[in-house]
Amino acid sequence: MKHELDTFFNPKSVAIIGASRHPKKFGRVIFENFLRTEFKGKVFAVNPKGESILGERCYKTLSEIKENIDLAVVVIPAEHVPQSIKECTKKGVRSCIVISAGFSEIGNLKGEEEILKAKGKMRIIGPNVIGIYDAYSKVDTIFNPPHRQSRPEKGSIGFISQSGAFGASMMDWASAEGIGLSRFISIGNRIDVDEIDLLDYLMKDNQTKAIAIYLEGTRRGSELFKKLKEAVKKKPVIIIKAGQTTEGSHAASSHTGSLAGEAEVYSGVFKQAGAIEVKEIEDLFNISKALAFQPLPKGNRIHVITNGGGFGVLATDALIKNKLKLSELSQDTIEKIKDSKDVPNYAVIKNPMDLVGDATSARYKAAIGAVLEDKNVDGIIVTVLFQLALMESNVVDVIINADRKSDKPIIICSAGGAYTSVHKKILEESGIPTYNTPEQAAKAMKA
Amino acid sequence: MKHELDTFFNPKSVAIIGASRHPKKFGRVIFENFLRTEFKGKVFAVNPKGESILGERCYKTLSEIKENIDLAVVVIPAEHVPQSIKECTKKGVRSCIVISAGFSEIGNLKGEEEILKAKGKMRIIGPNVIGIYDAYSKVDTIFNPPHRQSRPEKGSIGFISQSGAFGASMMDWASAEGIGLSRFISIGNRIDVDEIDLLDYLMKDNQTKAIAIYLEGTRRGSELFKKLKEAVKKKPVIIIKAGQTTEGSHAASSHTGSLAGEAEVYSGVFKQAGAIEVKEIEDLFNISKALAFQPLPKGNRIHVITNGGGFGVLATDALIKNKLKLSELSQDTIEKIKDSKDVPNYAVIKNPMDLVGDATSARYKAAIGAVLEDKNVDGIIVTVLFQLALMESNVVDVIINADRKSDKPIIICSAGGAYTSVHKKILEESGIPTYNTPEQAAKAMKA
Repeated sequence: MKHELDTFFNPKSVAIIGASRHPKKFGRVIFENFLRTEFKGKVFAVNPKGESILGERCYKTLSEIKENIDLAVVVIPAEHVPQSIKECTKKGVRSCIVISAGFSEIGNLKGEEEILKAKGKMRIIGPNVIGIYDAYSKVDTIFNPPHRQSRPEKGSIGFISQSGAFGASMMDWASAEGIGLSRFISIGNRIDVDEIDLLDYLMKDNQTKAIAIYLEGTRRGSELFKKLKEAVKKKPVIIIKAGQTTEGSHAASSHTGSLAGEAEVYSGVFKQAGAIEVKEIEDLFNISKALAFQPLPKGNRIHVITNGGGFGVLATDALIKNKLKLSELSQDTIEKIKDSKDVPNYAVIKNPMDLVGDATSARYKAAIGAVLEDKNVDGIIVTVLFQLALMESNVVDVIINADRKSDKPIIICSAGGAYTSVHKKILEESGIPTYNTPEQAAKAMKA
Repeated sequence: MKHELDTFFNPKSVAIIGASRHPKKFGRVIFENFLRTEFKGKVFAVNPKGESILGERCYKTLSEIKENIDLAVVVIPAEHVPQSIKECTKKGVRSCIVISAGFSEIGNLKGEEEILKAKGKMRIIGPNVIGIYDAYSKVDTIFNPPHRQSRPEKGSIGFISQSGAFGASMMDWASAEGIGLSRFISIGNRIDVDEIDLLDYLMKDNQTKAIAIYLEGTRRGSELFKKLKEAVKKKPVIIIKAGQTTEGSHAASSHTGSLAGEAEVYSGVFKQAGAIEVKEIEDLFNISKALAFQPLPKGNRIHVITNGGGFGVLATDALIKNKLKLSELSQDTIEKIKDSKDVPNYAVIKNPMDLVGDATSARYKAAIGAVLEDKNVDGIIVTVLFQLALMESNVVDVIINADRKSDKPIIICSAGGAYTSVHKKILEESGIPTYNTPEQAAKAMKA
C-alpha cells in the first residue's frame, strides 16, 4: 500500500499555482524545474494572467484544468493563499506545498488558521518552505536557480530540514562533494505535515538508507521520540539540533516561531531513542553517508593504511580520541604483506601502515586485501595522497573492488585540490565515503 | 642585513643535482618547476650522464659550473648524497636542500653523520623532505607535479611542516580554497635547519603575517619555547601537534624518528609561549588566514548578519560555545537600519540579524555599514547564502569595501557548491576569510 504522503514525492500531475513568466520569480524557477528534468508526470502552470509560460499553456484557474491534480505547489502572495487552498480542496488535490512566506514567522497566525480551515483532507507542507527535492522522481520545488544551487545526484540519504535556506546550501555542498540524496524536504512552519510524518515516510522508503534531520524544535515531543525509536530499527537517523545554547534557542524562536527548548532534553530524547546527534553541520552528511553505504564494523579494532606518514599519525590520534582501537595484525597477515612482490622492505607494516611516498596502486592492493582478510581487523581507514607522482588513478578501482568483496567498512581520507577531488568524487559515487581530514574519518567510523 | 637562511628562499643561482630527463623522476619535476615559473635566478641541471634536459644544458659535475651557486637541491640515491655534499662544500654552496630519503627514518644514521661531517658552513634542510615552496621568489622544490598538486597563490601564511606529504596536501587544499601562502618549508629529518631556525626566519619575514606549523615533536624544547615567545610578539603562530595520544606518539616516532613526547607538555609550552594550538587540521589554515588578514577584535561582542535564519541560529550557538557574546545594537543603529529604504519591515533587526531570503546586496550594505559603526560591536560574522535567487554577486564588493573602511574583523560564513565557491574565492583573495560552517567562523573569531 502506498504511503499517505506518496503524492508529494511521486505525483502523476502537478499544478504550479503562481507560475510566472518573469525569470527571477520563484514560480518561474519551480515551473522550469519540472520542465527541464526527467519528471514523468504532467505539469500545469496556473496564473490569473493566463499568458503562456516558456511556450506552455497557462491556466487562469485551477478549475480550468480537466485532469486530476495530485500535487499543488502554491507560490503566490500570502494574502491570496487561503483562497487558493479552497480551490485546491474543491478540485480534490491530494497534497499541497505552500512555498509562500508571510505567516506565523512574522506574526500572521490568522493566515495559517484560514489555510487549516480550508484544507479538508488535503495534506500540506509549509507554509514558508523551499519544499521538496526528490532525486528519483525529480519533483523539485526548490526556487533557487540550478546555476546557483546544484541538485544532488540520486543517492541514499533522506534529508528533512526545518530551515529551507540551510537545507538548500547543504544540498549545494553535497552536490559539489558527490554526495547523493534520495529526497529532501523543508518543513518550514509545518502547520500540517511535520518531521514526524516525514520520518515515517522516509523510514518506509526503500531508496533512503539513512535519514538526516536539521531540527530547531518539535511541537510533538513524545511522538517524535516514539517515531525515532521505530525508525532507528530500520535505518540510522542522524540529527543536528540548532539552538543548542539558550541564545541559539531564542534565535530559533524568531526564525520559525518554534520553541527550541532545552538542548539537554533533546539530547536525552535522541540518545534514548537511538538516534545519532551531531554538533557540527559538516558531520550531518559526513556521518550519514558512511552509515548509508558502509556495513557496521563488528568491533572497534581499526587499521590505518597510508602513503603519507603524517596522516598516519593524525589518523591514529583521531581514532584514539574517538575511543576506537588500533588493530593488531596477525603474524600471517604481516608476512603475507611483506612477502608481496609489490611491497618494498622500506614500507612500515604496522598500524598505522605507511606504504610510503612512492606507493603504487599495486602496493595498496596487496595491503588492503590482506588487512581486510585479517580477523583481528574490524574496519579500515585508507589515506590516499593523490598528489604524489607515483600514485596511480586506478587505486580508485583497487578500493572499490576491495569494498565490494568485503563486509568490513572502508573509509577514505584524502585532502587536496582539483586532481584529488576528481578521484574522491568517483569513490563517493561508488558508495565509499571520503573525508578531508583524519578527524572526520574517525568520527564517521565511530558512528 | 639579510637573514642567514635567505639563500634558501632568494637564491641568485640554483643547482639541481640529480636533474633527470625521465618525466616521473623527482629531479625532473623540480628542474621543470624552476624553468616554467617566474623564478628570476639562474638554474643549472647536474647529472653525471650530462645529456641535455628539456633543451637545457646539463652539467656532469657541480664543479663544471663556473658561476657561484647559492642553493643546491640534492635528489639522488641516499648512498651518493655524502659525496655530493662534499662537492657542494668545495664549490662554496651556501645552502642545500636534501630531498633524498633513506636516512634515519629507516635506521641509516651513518648516512646523516657523513652529511654533517661534510657540510662545513653550508646550511642543510632535510634529508627526507619535499623542500621549499616560495610563492614570491618561486623557489619550488616540490616534486609533486603541478597538475596533481596545485601551488598556492602569493599570500601571507608562512607554513612549516615536519611531514612533507601532509604539507603538500595542505598546500593543494589551500590553493583550491583560494588561500595564499608566503613560504612553505618541510623540515623532514632536520639534521641541521629545524623548526626553530625557520620560525626565526619567518618571524622576520615581511611577507609572512601569520605562521602555521605542523609539528610531530622537537629536539630543542627550551629553544622552541623561547623562539615562540619572541615570534608571537611579531605575528600569530598557530600550531598543530601530531601525536596527541600515546598511540599517535608511537606512530610519529616511526615516521620521522622524532620522539613525540607528552601532548600535555607541548600544549603547556605552546600556551605559555602565547602560540595558538589547534587540534584539527582544517583549523590550522582556517585560523591562520583570519589572523593573517583581519584586525583583532577589541572585545568579545560579535554581531551575526544572515539571509538564512537557520544559519543565524547555528552561528549564535557557535559563538556562545566559543565563549563569545552576542552584541546588542544601540537604539540609534537599529533605527538607522529600520529607516533604510533598502531594508523591508519583515527583516529581523536583532542579533542574529535576519535580512531574510530575498535580501539584496543593498540590504547587506545598509546592515553591515550600520553595524560596523556601532560602538557596541567588536566584530561581525556575515552569512551569505549565494543560492538564493535575489542575492546579487556584488554583495562581494559591499563586503570588501566595508572591510577596507573598518578596523573591526569581518568573517564570512557561506556554504555551497560551484557558484558559491567562485564568490568565496574572490573574498579570500581580498583578505576576507570565508568558512563553510558557523562553527569554523566562530572558532576563527575566537582565535
